[in-house]
Amino acid sequence: MATTATTTAATAAEDILEGLPSEEELAAKCLQLGLAMRQPPTYHVTHPALSLRPLPMKVEVLRELYGLQLLWNEAINRTARNFEFLRDSMRSTAESDRDFTGRLLSILERVYMTTPDGAKAPVYQPLMLGIFRSDYMSSVDSESSSPVSPAEAAASVTLSGAAAAAVATETSRQWKNIEFNTISCSFAGLSPLVQQFHAYLQKFREADMNARAAADLEHVEASSLSTSSVVAALPHQHAPAYVPDQMHSSAVQVPAALAKAVAAWRSAVPCAGFLRQYQHRTGVKLKPIVLVVVQKNEMNTADQYKLLLELLETHRVLSLRRTLAELHETMRLEHANLGESRCDHSTGTKEVVSEQLQPPFLVLEGKYVVAVTYFRSTYVPQDLPTDAAWQTREWIEESNAVKCPSIPYHLMTFKKMQQLMSNVSEVLAPVSFAGDQQKAAALAEHFVPQYSLNKDEYGRSGENQQCNDKDKVIDDPEYWIADAVEHLERYVLKPQLEGGGNLIAGEAMQRLLRDAKSDDPLYQKIRREYILMRKIHCPVMKGIFFRQNQIHVVESNVSSELGIYGVTLSSDANQYIMNEAAGSVVRTKPADVADGGVMAGIAALDSVQLIDEAPHEVAWSGASAVADERYP
Amino acid sequence: MATTATTTAATAAEDILEGLPSEEELAAKCLQLGLAMRQPPTYHVTHPALSLRPLPMKVEVLRELYGLQLLWNEAINRTARNFEFLRDSMRSTAESDRDFTGRLLSILERVYMTTPDGAKAPVYQPLMLGIFRSDYMSSVDSESSSPVSPAEAAASVTLSGAAAAAVATETSRQWKNIEFNTISCSFAGLSPLVQQFHAYLQKFREADMNARAAADLEHVEASSLSTSSVVAALPHQHAPAYVPDQMHSSAVQVPAALAKAVAAWRSAVPCAGFLRQYQHRTGVKLKPIVLVVVQKNEMNTADQYKLLLELLETHRVLSLRRTLAELHETMRLEHANLGESRCDHSTGTKEVVSEQLQPPFLVLEGKYVVAVTYFRSTYVPQDLPTDAAWQTREWIEESNAVKCPSIPYHLMTFKKMQQLMSNVSEVLAPVSFAGDQQKAAALAEHFVPQYSLNKDEYGRSGENQQCNDKDKVIDDPEYWIADAVEHLERYVLKPQLEGGGNLIAGEAMQRLLRDAKSDDPLYQKIRREYILMRKIHCPVMKGIFFRQNQIHVVESNVSSELGIYGVTLSSDANQYIMNEAAGSVVRTKPADVADGGVMAGIAALDSVQLIDEAPHEVAWSGASAVADERYP
Repeated sequence: MATTATTTAATAAEDILEGLPSEEELAAKCLQLGLAMRQPPTYHVTHPALSLRPLPMKVEVLRELYGLQLLWNEAINRTARNFEFLRDSMRSTAESDRDFTGRLLSILERVYMTTPDGAKAPVYQPLMLGIFRSDYMSSVDSESSSPVSPAEAAASVTLSGAAAAAVATETSRQWKNIEFNTISCSFAGLSPLVQQFHAYLQKFREADMNARAAADLEHVEASSLSTSSVVAALPHQHAPAYVPDQMHSSAVQVPAALAKAVAAWRSAVPCAGFLRQYQHRTGVKLKPIVLVVVQKNEMNTADQYKLLLELLETHRVLSLRRTLAELHETMRLEHANLGESRCDHSTGTKEVVSEQLQPPFLVLEGKYVVAVTYFRSTYVPQDLPTDAAWQTREWIEESNAVKCPSIPYHLMTFKKMQQLMSNVSEVLAPVSFAGDQQKAAALAEHFVPQYSLNKDEYGRSGENQQCNDKDKVIDDPEYWIADAVEHLERYVLKPQLEGGGNLIAGEAMQRLLRDAKSDDPLYQKIRREYILMRKIHCPVMKGIFFRQNQIHVVESNVSSELGIYGVTLSSDANQYIMNEAAGSVVRTKPADVADGGVMAGIAALDSVQLIDEAPHEVAWSGASAVADERYP
Repeated sequence: MATTATTTAATAAEDILEGLPSEEELAAKCLQLGLAMRQPPTYHVTHPALSLRPLPMKVEVLRELYGLQLLWNEAINRTARNFEFLRDSMRSTAESDRDFTGRLLSILERVYMTTPDGAKAPVYQPLMLGIFRSDYMSSVDSESSSPVSPAEAAASVTLSGAAAAAVATETSRQWKNIEFNTISCSFAGLSPLVQQFHAYLQKFREADMNARAAADLEHVEASSLSTSSVVAALPHQHAPAYVPDQMHSSAVQVPAALAKAVAAWRSAVPCAGFLRQYQHRTGVKLKPIVLVVVQKNEMNTADQYKLLLELLETHRVLSLRRTLAELHETMRLEHANLGESRCDHSTGTKEVVSEQLQPPFLVLEGKYVVAVTYFRSTYVPQDLPTDAAWQTREWIEESNAVKCPSIPYHLMTFKKMQQLMSNVSEVLAPVSFAGDQQKAAALAEHFVPQYSLNKDEYGRSGENQQCNDKDKVIDDPEYWIADAVEHLERYVLKPQLEGGGNLIAGEAMQRLLRDAKSDDPLYQKIRREYILMRKIHCPVMKGIFFRQNQIHVVESNVSSELGIYGVTLSSDANQYIMNEAAGSVVRTKPADVADGGVMAGIAALDSVQLIDEAPHEVAWSGASAVADERYP
């Protein structure tokens, strides 16, 4: 009987499959690790698609990208908290997309920019929790270094010495940012499990090599019987070992950030007084919780629960997963009656405190009070299909619960904001970094040029002026459109919201920009909302995937996308309770597919294999910008 | 909206469900832990049925039962290696059940008791690996102590002080052995995960209690923001914590035993020479492996892979799971041509070594050589449906692979052997313990009386003579049958092979023993093969189960069965390479159901909650009888 691997990947060369476990064993390892997802239409448990070859990467480069994440966190936070700039920047997109962007912007204006009667300023919870992810691809266009040779890098699970040397010449500048995400960043829970999966593959391969060497081991037989001494006496593995990223603790750091937000909320709101009042009034002791707002038919529950179970077991914080539809029926906003409370203990002089000065508590199901709302939905229009859903979303924003993300943070995920921030001198440095040119320059090294196609925006300010290859200032989008039609390999068209396979590239982009009639609704939408981005040419390698319980060899080459998680908790633009890089995720997909995620069945989860001659146990202290965690 | 738990367990009292996670979260925790099985007919991944309340138990009692396991291992090994005694004891059962017991006994005779032509003694692999499990139930009949009060023990996940005190009076003698298993002992892989699951339930309960106490926490708000200090400032939990069994490492010890057997095999057979010859002849470097013989549609793969992945990742030993049908096509027995090998290096005098003096190597799929065969099947007749399957089983026994279990070990799992060993003076002490009365007495404390119903056996020897309650020697099975008909609550009828819901008890037993005609085939089979055993009356408690993603409260009371794993590796009756207790498993089921396993959907996996005032980190050194692991 042939091995399972050979049978099901029959077209692959034997040497590619050598040293790989059987498909049955791969599936069992996923299940053992809890590396799981639910597969529609039945929502039965299966494994996510996995790359069987980790992405080789220099340890210093990964560390620099971790360090950079602190700047991303800061830039996003400060830009988001400039509500006027945010509103003005998003206005034309909101006008084009009234039903989603427009309604989000309305919540921004009502909650954060409108002063209620009797108050002196808008009333909102200033604490904001960010769980972000910046996505990068490695560019072979970089002038400063040679890319990894695909042939060499693909040679084995562990790298040959030559391939390792090629990786060693890479620099962090090669890693170009393709987007940042501020809402529902997935795989922080599962990603460390992929690393464990790859460590297992490495152990299998070593065991397989040792087994083949058994014939050479006569001298072992005379020696001790203990297992460890047999292993020690085996021929030494000379290939560099799979070195996992020791700092990869997204499944620990993200729950810790949620717990820290709960503690900050407790400290910032009159929690104990409200709970006593509520109990006095109703007899119920409300339980503080983290509310996770989810989609109805979520496939990625294992990822979410990995975080929520850690939140419970390490931080003793309860959480509830609920859809917006469920919440609408069971949610109430309740003001703490502080005036009354203080009156009880006063000397007789009634001290009247306006209830409107504080945002209300969010009470759920008559049993819980929400300390933190963690959104794993509401990032696509389909998540908010009714007025009731929008009303519920706005109530949450009005409440004193810490939002992850708040509406200002959420709006930062739109491509429009990313395109504006790529303008270093007029947006990134002055707005996002409060004038700090050095920080702006550090981030800008990782930008690729991106352009608005909306002529109105060019007219309105100078912020969209960019230079062409000959350093001529261009203030008309028709220039870029003409260039894209002529050099279709240089550009890609991105919608405001990514992740649904909506990128337009190649001949489709060329036809659309060249041939569409000006009254074509899609063309109009693209001209108003889409961003034209320079295409990143990344190294491609032969891929081996484990998908739906089968090994697949992808001869057509694959490319990888590296995501760096960031967590940040703050109450204004400058003071941070927490600002950290929080691990990574790699997604690898066929290079000829423009986009599409893991859940869509296109990409496969992957992990970083660090290439490092130095001992990798050395802890790197630059991952947090907040050395002292005192509350400001 | 009501919580999921209340909705789906609507009939249960609110206080029982208080402090339990939602059903969705319970399912997610199982998946995260890899606590999984496959559910026919689709074989999709689900969780095994789980008890939500661990079994309270005194730490000293559990340790005594661990210590006792070393005696079980020894008794089974020594009895099994007395081939004549084994054959004679099983003869009448084999005559009644020719197609299964009879064919197993034939393999015993051919491989272990027949001297081949040209040899001076039978040729077989004397190394035998045992992975055993002894099953106990706690008896409330015990004169020496009061049982746990069901009402108290069921009061909460953690015990109240009063219930803990009741448990504290239990003795290990209360735990009566109901059977021992020598083949395919399941749940050594999953059982430690059940303990982790129960530790999670305890953490949830603490978090839930802390959350309800949030209203009392005003003083916390003024203090530090760090999560840990918030937790530390919460009211102290006074209920005794869930103390997991620190020695519960079955998922580590069982793979370690398999690895040790591989190392012992390497040392005992001319491995390197054979591999060199084979490579010279065929060009193939054979890989030594552990062969796991499995059933075709196995549900319990997660349990098996938990062990096999540990075997790979910690001990670097490869394994293959194969059915007997697959093996028949791909298996060959190959003799090492040592004579030829030695001739090459001789001074010219050809030294002829008979190949028959050594059992042959087992070569699989032209790529692997089998060091150890681990049977997770062949324990029921359905696993051996064809002559080809029996032929394959016999080839394996002839080979030099270490069998787990060997045919002699396998035969020890029959009730006949257990019934005979319960005769202390005539079997247990002289045969199983080579005359050591002290060891025999220690084991005998845990026996319940059991009787053969086969009159021929009474006639053949005195070994079935037992005394009745008035110390009168009874040498006629009709006495016990009459007693069982009159006192049906005192007895249970057990078939030779357990596990399929084939126990006969209560009125069914009464009707059968009283009313069946003497020529009724079932009656005849029962008279020849079944064992009449005194029934154990164990403490019953209210049960809460998690079964098929739903919480179920079982008002009709449940009882628990405690299994203690043992691992032993030896080459004869007296010399042990390994002899250890290896953790435990608890299975809990409705008390009114006579038998039925976890996979049959009757019982639920459970774990021990230790009751111990003393620090539980103290390691107990009595778990291994082999202080020095040198090979004898």
